Order: sequence, then C-alpha cells, then structure tokens
Amino acid sequence: MAEGEVQVDIKPAVNEDDDFVDPWTVTGKSDTGIDYDKLIKRFGSQKIDDELIQRFEKVTGKKAHHFLTRGIFFSHRDLNTILNLHEAGKKFYLYTGRGPSSESMHIGHMVPFMFTKWLQDVFDVPLIIQLTDDEKVLWRDLKIEDARKMAFDNAKDIIAVGFNQEKTFIFNDLDFVGQCPAFYQNMVRIQKCVTFNQVKGIFGFGESDVIGKITFPSIEAAPAFSTSFPFIFENKVLPCLVPCAIDQDPYFRMSRDVAARLKMPKPALLHSTFLPALQGAQHKMSSSDPNASIFLNDSPKQIKNKINKFAFSGGQATVDEHRLKGGNTSVDISYKYLTYFLEDDRRLAEIKNEYESGVLLTGELKREAINVITPWIQQYQQRRAKVTDEIVESYFKIRPIKL
Amino acid sequence: MAEGEVQVDIKPAVNEDDDFVDPWTVTGKSDTGIDYDKLIKRFGSQKIDDELIQRFEKVTGKKAHHFLTRGIFFSHRDLNTILNLHEAGKKFYLYTGRGPSSESMHIGHMVPFMFTKWLQDVFDVPLIIQLTDDEKVLWRDLKIEDARKMAFDNAKDIIAVGFNQEKTFIFNDLDFVGQCPAFYQNMVRIQKCVTFNQVKGIFGFGESDVIGKITFPSIEAAPAFSTSFPFIFENKVLPCLVPCAIDQDPYFRMSRDVAARLKMPKPALLHSTFLPALQGAQHKMSSSDPNASIFLNDSPKQIKNKINKFAFSGGQATVDEHRLKGGNTSVDISYKYLTYFLEDDRRLAEIKNEYESGVLLTGELKREAINVITPWIQQYQQRRAKVTDEIVESYFKIRPIKL
Repeated sequence: MAEGEVQVDIKPAVNEDDDFVDPWTVTGKSDTGIDYDKLIKRFGSQKIDDELIQRFEKVTGKKAHHFLTRGIFFSHRDLNTILNLHEAGKKFYLYTGRGPSSESMHIGHMVPFMFTKWLQDVFDVPLIIQLTDDEKVLWRDLKIEDARKMAFDNAKDIIAVGFNQEKTFIFNDLDFVGQCPAFYQNMVRIQKCVTFNQVKGIFGFGESDVIGKITFPSIEAAPAFSTSFPFIFENKVLPCLVPCAIDQDPYFRMSRDVAARLKMPKPALLHSTFLPALQGAQHKMSSSDPNASIFLNDSPKQIKNKINKFAFSGGQATVDEHRLKGGNTSVDISYKYLTYFLEDDRRLAEIKNEYESGVLLTGELKREAINVITPWIQQYQQRRAKVTDEIVESYFKIRPIKL
Repeated sequence: MAEGEVQVDIKPAVNEDDDFVDPWTVTGKSDTGIDYDKLIKRFGSQKIDDELIQRFEKVTGKKAHHFLTRGIFFSHRDLNTILNLHEAGKKFYLYTGRGPSSESMHIGHMVPFMFTKWLQDVFDVPLIIQLTDDEKVLWRDLKIEDARKMAFDNAKDIIAVGFNQEKTFIFNDLDFVGQCPAFYQNMVRIQKCVTFNQVKGIFGFGESDVIGKITFPSIEAAPAFSTSFPFIFENKVLPCLVPCAIDQDPYFRMSRDVAARLKMPKPALLHSTFLPALQGAQHKMSSSDPNASIFLNDSPKQIKNKINKFAFSGGQATVDEHRLKGGNTSVDISYKYLTYFLEDDRRLAEIKNEYESGVLLTGELKREAINVITPWIQQYQQRRAKVTDEIVESYFKIRPIKL
C-alpha cells in the first residue's frame, strides 16, 4: 500500500475545496484536518455509529477499542456481515498491508496495525499481511533487491506490534508471487475483469503510466480472496475483513466489484483516519519529512524535542489569553495524538476540559502527550529489539494456519 | 503466443492495401499470400539472404535447413551476433512458445517448432518453451483450470517434435510464474519500463481492454532474459535467440527496447512465414476452421480428402489448357506445402518444372503433397503416442540444465 511521496496522473478531486485522498496523496483543506464525514459520502462507505459499536461489543463480548469509540476507525463496509458470521460461529480472516520504505516507520503507520492486532485477538482469526515491495519498485527509483530488503526490515517493525505468529502470515510480493501459483492465478482472474478505463477512473492512471502501475491494483486485491492462499485456507472460500487507512479504499472498491464478478465474497472494510503530521492536521504524518513525524526509533529526547518544537498548538497567543479563552483541541496536535495513544477515557476527558477551559497550558498539554507517547515507543522498541531474522522467517514461512 | 481467433482493438495497417499482421490477426491481400519483403520493411527487420545462409553454414559446419534456403524462415534480427558468439565458443539459448488451444494442433503450428528443434541440434543449446495459458484465459471465455489442461495437452504435441529432454525446459505461465520468484521479478522490471502508450502503439490495445491484456506483453518478454531462469542459468546473463512466426515480432521489438533499458542483451530473432490455409495463401492455417487445416491427428484418409477437396490449385481450368499454359506454383497450396515438407531440393525442383510446364496435372501435384505429408504425420503420430504424462513432467520439471 502506498504513501504520499509520488504523484501519478491524479484524478482531480470533485471540487477545489474538497480534501484530496487517494493512495498516493492525502491533503486536507481545513486546519481541523480531513472532513471524514464528507469522505464517507464521497467514497460511499458507512459511518461506524454508536449502534454498530454496541453491536460489536454485544457480539464479541469485548469492550470496544478506543479507536472505535473515538472515531479513529470511523467508516466501514459490511462490518455487519462479519459480525453476523462471528455470531454464527463462522470464520473469516483479516488482511492488511504496507508499502515498505527505507525510512523508519512512524507512529502513524502503527494505527492500522495496532487495531488489526486487537481485531485478531478479539476474533481469533488468521491474518494476512502483504508488503507491496513490487509497488515501490514501480513507483520509485528503486531496485528489486533493495525493495525486498526494505520489506524484510519493515516486517520486523510490524511483527513488534505483537501479532500472534501462529495465526499470522506475512509476505512480500516480489518473493511470494513466485512461490504460490494460486496467487498468480487469482491475479489473472482479477486482471481479466478490470479494464484500463476502470483503473483510470478509480486510481487516476493515465496513458503515460507504465503497465506495471496499471496492473498493480490486481496484486493488492488478490489477498482479499482466500483462494489466493491454499496452504492456509485449503481452497475454502472465506470472507475477508480489511482494516486499513481510508486512502486504500479505492483498491477495495475495485476488489468488491471484482468479487461480485468472480462469485466470491466481497471483502469487508474498516477505515481509519490519518494520524496528523506534527505541523498540523491538513497533512498526515509522512516518513519523507523527519520534522513532521515521530519515528519508532526516536529517542525520548527526540520525541520530547519534536513535540515541544513542532507540534501545532491550539493554545492562545499569551498565557493570559489562554487562561481566559482556553485552547482549541480540534486543531491541537498534541491533543490529537493523545486521542490515539492515551487509552484512559476519563483522563482524556479531563485533559480536554482542562485545556479547553484554560486550566492546562500548551506546554503542559505537550508534556501529557510526551508522557504517553514516550513509554509507548519505549515498550515498542523493547519488543522490536527481540525480533530476530529467524522470527521474521517464521512469519514468512508458507505453512498451514489453524483457522 | 496468440493465434488469429480473437480480435482486440486493432492498430490499423498502414494502408488499406497492406497485408495485416499482428499477434491476433494475419490477412494477406494477394492470392500469392503475404508480401514478406514489404513486412520486413514495415517491421524493420533484416532479410535472411544468401550471404547470411553461407555464413550460417560456415560457422556451424552444417548444411542449412531447407526452411532457410527456401525463405520459409525469411527474416531475422541480430542473427550475426548469435553466429559470432557460436564462432567464439560462447553459449546462448533458444526461446519459443505457443498459446495453447483446445483444438488439435495443425501442421502450420509445427513449422517454428521443427526449425527450433533443428537449431537446438545444430547449436546444442538449452531451449525454453513457454505455453501462455494465462493469455488464453485473458483473451477467451476460458477458465484457469481448462487453460492449464490445454497447456499440458499441447505440451505432448510439442514434445513429439523430438526436443532433447536434457536441454529443454517447458512451462505454462499459470503454474510457473507462481514457482519462480526471479521470473516475476523480471516481469516487474519489464512492466516498469513500458507505458500504456507504448503497448497501445505496438499491440493496438485500447482503454476498454482489461489490464491483464495490457500487462501480458511483459510475460511473453520475460523468457527472453536468462535471469528469469536462475535454476538453469545460475544468474548468468546469456543472449537469447527466438525462432517464431513473424506475427510474434511485436513482443520482441518491445523486448529489445526493454533489454536496452535493463542493460541486458537484446534477444535475436528468426522469423518464419505462415503455412497457408488449404483455401489459399491469403490466410494462414487456423485451428478454428477444420476445413482449412491439416491437423496432427488427421487420418491418412482425412489428409487425402482435405487436400483433394480443399487445397487451392494453381492449375488451369481444363487439362488441355493446363498442358498448354502450365500451373502456377506461386498460388498453388499443394506446391506450397511441398516447399515446407519435401526436403529433397532436386525432387521439389522437378515438381515445380513439371507443374509449370503442364506435364504434371493438379491431381498429380496433389498426390505428391499427400504422399509427402501423410508419412510425415504418421511418423509424428508414432512419436506422439509415446509421450506419456511422466515424459511431459520431465520437461516441465524445474531443474538445472547443462549449458
């Protein structure tokens, strides 16, 4: 899956004033960030509302993740179908992925993976993670060998999230497509029912794009069909739930169209918002700008400095004015990060009240964020240090997985 | 590789009066058949002339095949480079292929394979044969499973030509792409340097074509690079010589462009003419019309009937007129078939003289053709009967091959 670095011929957004969201570019027009309600309308997905969250809790018997209750995973397609299956004791599987990069992963990359791990624990189902190193070769000035190495390195960062090895299969396209005939056969099935005009409409590809880009959507779509992995699913047709950032939705709109034509179950979707860049909510956090991002290998000192120096503040110009008017949490980046990383709902509500009423100053709010993110990253780094090459290979191994 | 059955958005021929030749359609405008000299000019290839044939004989120490001396293999790209290599004691490899079909193969299909076998014997080099079953899924209303079966069946017909098992690797895309990471990696390398505009120009693809068709040329190009087969060539960069019918040249024009960009040797080419249909030289023999073709599983009686009934004659309307004016070998299909299947140059010259001078009547010429083709097919059928599933598997086995 792709990030914002490389522009292809982009399908223009509907209006000049609209936020722009596609797999390669995300830009919000307002300092409060992307208008996700508008995006739901534009993409034709469904909002995750209180009723659905309640049903989720009822069916799973688990308290909903704060990513659900706080609208961080805000949109879905066919989540009810998945809940019906689970209720009936039937199995499905999870699929997510990443376009590997040479830069360190940042905390924004973790959001879909953290939630996917939680879903895997809640449902106890197999998980497929695709690393699209072929995509990176096609979109960037990058050699096959370097892309494969990036995928392997990134896999360590992902494994450190804590996925259950017994239930998780990770692969990189450049090695796996050549190891699984059923996967290539599903790519051909998908490539047979999608025209150039369709990928032009969905992804904005143009006539001067290379044929690798034009066919790439079939490679990201293939893992959404269980028959692509006969060593796991033994040719059983199992439905798939894809947790991902909303910018990947075009691939799965296409996959759902294809599913209907192949008489396969349409993949269900859970969409996340983007963790904003330090500088403000108009942009998502991006590896290509070190000052915009908190990386998974940042030291406590780097984290502290970046937040203190760069995190856009919703506070007022002076202490007196702040005490009087209070801060604006809807644009404050430190506060936004707390909504992602501070699990304690009560404490988050206190901070919000104190900041908005002017009791809490900007420096104090930043300290709260630093005090939540620093130990989170330190614990992550401890897990990451234990991920050896052998452990990576155990996730990449083509093997049966218990459903 | 493809035959004439299915029309895609076709790039128009340069002029209305020109013959039309692309991988899906071959149509001549004259009853003497395709104007191959014009085709050489249009495609930008080189004519195989007497000088080159003499050099071929000198370098190989073998008498040239009658397909060379009679202009059946009439055109080439970089054959001199291959002869230079052989002269210097250096190795190269051969690559040819076929788009499998459910219909029986016919004698026209045998022409590139017969010549390829001869080249393999002369040069003692490895040979790769690709069966593009994925292409057939993309271009026809055909299921993956049926296409794979067709490839396996067609492999038996091809093996019966007599290829040296120790030096020949045969594969079908739908199974092999998923068994060889290096092959998929080369597909991606190729897909990265060819744009939609280029395949539109070369193959006539349009915006309403499916993305599988648009990317397919990368799959036919990949075997022209030795690094696609590390189990054979151990990542050595070896030049490739592709003997094929001239309609496949667009794939290799593209491959040669790509080679330059990947800093790999450009594949050399040897182009054959098309064995004409029974009804006349405007069309090539085609499986989809049983009355136009002599199939490899036809009985002696069927062969005799088809030639007597359908083979277009260059004879005159009455015996008297024929005795007076003589027959026209340039349009006579029985005579054309003899140029392909009668090896004896002296006898062929006699027949030509006798027919053109009116000594030989049409019925007698037809009998000559029947008497050459029938035993050829019977011997072929004897070899074909011995090709078991186990033998096919021995050719398909992914294995080292001695260079």
